Amino acid sequence: MRKSCSIVALLTDFGLRDHYVGTMKAVMLSIEPSLTILDITHEVQPQNMRQASYLLWATYRYFPRKTLFVCVVDPGVGTSRRIIVVRTSQWTFLAPENGLLDLVLSEEEAELCLAVDLDRLKRDALISPELSSTFHGRDIFAPLAAHIARGRKLTSLGEAIQTPKATPAFVSEKTPRVRPSVLHIDRFGNIITNILGDNRDFLSRSARGIAIGRKMVTRWVENYESAPPRTPCLIVGSSGLVEISVKLGSAADVLSVDLTTPLRIIGP
Amino acid sequence: MRKSCSIVALLTDFGLRDHYVGTMKAVMLSIEPSLTILDITHEVQPQNMRQASYLLWATYRYFPRKTLFVCVVDPGVGTSRRIIVVRTSQWTFLAPENGLLDLVLSEEEAELCLAVDLDRLKRDALISPELSSTFHGRDIFAPLAAHIARGRKLTSLGEAIQTPKATPAFVSEKTPRVRPSVLHIDRFGNIITNILGDNRDFLSRSARGIAIGRKMVTRWVENYESAPPRTPCLIVGSSGLVEISVKLGSAADVLSVDLTTPLRIIGP
Amino acid sequence: MRKSCSIVALLTDFGLRDHYVGTMKAVMLSIEPSLTILDITHEVQPQNMRQASYLLWATYRYFPRKTLFVCVVDPGVGTSRRIIVVRTSQWTFLAPENGLLDLVLSEEEAELCLAVDLDRLKRDALISPELSSTFHGRDIFAPLAAHIARGRKLTSLGEAIQTPKATPAFVSEKTPRVRPSVLHIDRFGNIITNILGDNRDFLSRSARGIAIGRKMVTRWVENYESAPPRTPCLIVGSSGLVEISVKLGSAADVLSVDLTTPLRIIGP
Repeated sequence: MRKSCSIVALLTDFGLRDHYVGTMKAVMLSIEPSLTILDITHEVQPQNMRQASYLLWATYRYFPRKTLFVCVVDPGVGTSRRIIVVRTSQWTFLAPENGLLDLVLSEEEAELCLAVDLDRLKRDALISPELSSTFHGRDIFAPLAAHIARGRKLTSLGEAIQTPKATPAFVSEKTPRVRPSVLHIDRFGNIITNILGDNRDFLSRSARGIAIGRKMVTRWVENYESAPPRTPCLIVGSSGLVEISVKLGSAADVLSVDLTTPLRIIGP
Repeated sequence: MRKSCSIVALLTDFGLRDHYVGTMKAVMLSIEPSLTILDITHEVQPQNMRQASYLLWATYRYFPRKTLFVCVVDPGVGTSRRIIVVRTSQWTFLAPENGLLDLVLSEEEAELCLAVDLDRLKRDALISPELSSTFHGRDIFAPLAAHIARGRKLTSLGEAIQTPKATPAFVSEKTPRVRPSVLHIDRFGNIITNILGDNRDFLSRSARGIAIGRKMVTRWVENYESAPPRTPCLIVGSSGLVEISVKLGSAADVLSVDLTTPLRIIGP
Repeated sequence: MRKSCSIVALLTDFGLRDHYVGTMKAVMLSIEPSLTILDITHEVQPQNMRQASYLLWATYRYFPRKTLFVCVVDPGVGTSRRIIVVRTSQWTFLAPENGLLDLVLSEEEAELCLAVDLDRLKRDALISPELSSTFHGRDIFAPLAAHIARGRKLTSLGEAIQTPKATPAFVSEKTPRVRPSVLHIDRFGNIITNILGDNRDFLSRSARGIAIGRKMVTRWVENYESAPPRTPCLIVGSSGLVEISVKLGSAADVLSVDLTTPLRIIGP
């Protein structure tokens, strides 16, 4: 069988303390030894689909064409929640149907979308007839990914379903209904919002700044080093989103912010 | 020399903060550039052979035939503790002789078992004559692994020793002498016990539940989502062992359990 | 184009919680799919160039010839700080010009040293004309690394600059001016100093031990296991440096030491 895809990118909340990620890779390499497996991250907060959705969105466009993204943040594991496969013009995504692909699908058009049929996979011996109820990463996602990467026809894996509708996910001048929020806090303590940086002009015209926790952040900087010390500043981050950062420090610590802290744009 | 094995799986307590794992991989690739190196985990609690033994056992069967497992949790590094190589019908294991392979050997039969002869390895220029006394992962395990993976005859590496006896490691109806205990706590806070899940019927008949810390856990669930909120429940986990879990939370936190907390099966 | 190098080793302070490392690898593999990418570590303390310099020094000599080291600990990202490429007889190093290569260059002679010319890279379409101001790992280091690994002539990447002068970095009998200090604390809590272990005799003759925090450490051991319990001891570690360690425990915890704790050699 010809390989139609050789890179598999993994995004999970499994962490690296356990054998879970290693086991998924072992299953994949047992089926297709020539795979290149790339980790996006496994440190998504347990069961945080929204954070996972952001992390996937921030990176997917940098992967080679035909990369298969395997995303397992899956609090519904072992229930009847569906597993979906979405193909766009350049990439393929495999994930539970729980919103994990929302941010990607707010930008990418799906060419094909299907719900995986587990009975069919069992009948075709692509997965084991005996599934655990707690580790579908190993029992479904990994073998399915390896078979897709080997060239298995997607339409043989389940039934086509309606393409999820792309809904606006980011705050901009054109999307006044989207609520501003914190998407992610990175290792450096940078607070990444869902506000598009290309409205910086709009923001500057129409707002005094961003209120988060009990503080207002109003100062824009061009890079980390040009910020004054110990002062939270606004910056357009590497994904084009507005971030709040502190030079040589953690904005999240200085402002006592976590992923659930509310955030508001403050008018003039 | 023909490759007899191309996958090396690593399990250590080195963590990922230091250069240790990268250095081991560098040494291996310097000897055999075509190796595929897979991480099981490097976050074993420092010097916790029992936890390492569980993590290896939980994953080894998912690796391709001929995988070489290199396990370095080694508080005796630099002393005269022996390093052993164990070959089973499908896999090869390299580890210090300190119990790390116990759980695997409770299930797998060893075809060949030998103690590595460091003098011979030095004479054959497989390892450097100068060894550090603190990093045998780099100085012995890594080069030895690469040479084994390249096809070096195992019997040239040391003297055959007696095959370690397989002793029961899991609690079941047939092994009343094995003491129930906590093997591992995973990233999600699931508490993994050494009680086989296939005695669930036996357990349900003969026991009211599991006592851990100051609490009794008695409720069985089929998957995480069907558990009531904030309630520790019993579940048969992905390795076939009884786990204690809390839906969308950490059972270990809720019950204040760590790897040393005693655990009892409570009769009716 | 012939590959002149196939291994890229990464050292960053990006951590593994974010998509940053995965994105860098995605960019590299998009340009050169056959690369082998090896992680040294990504857990350098944010912006700690000195720790990064130690970690690189401790591992680089174990990598295959022609390995390209890509080091991104870069508080000056987005400013006009320079990015340099240094080639020695065996390896190539790519890093911001901020001292990260200091320890390596205290031992290795540079054959070629150049400052990357971003305008030229843009003109040659090696990097995008649009750079973020916060993630040069993705926008400059990763594509540049992939092009170097593919065989791009180094001299086409920028202007030759003066070879950085090798200055003594370690404390020894011959370098009385170098100040003793803590270079790194590893996962096990071992405190790694910048004192060369091969002056152990000198140290034993001329000093009573090492003062750190409020304690004196005077006892030498040959390996971890031969140390008395709960007693900080001196040991020559795997990089040939004097380390302070505690058997089955963390010397850093026992002594309340961090990377900034002063350290002195105490004369007789």
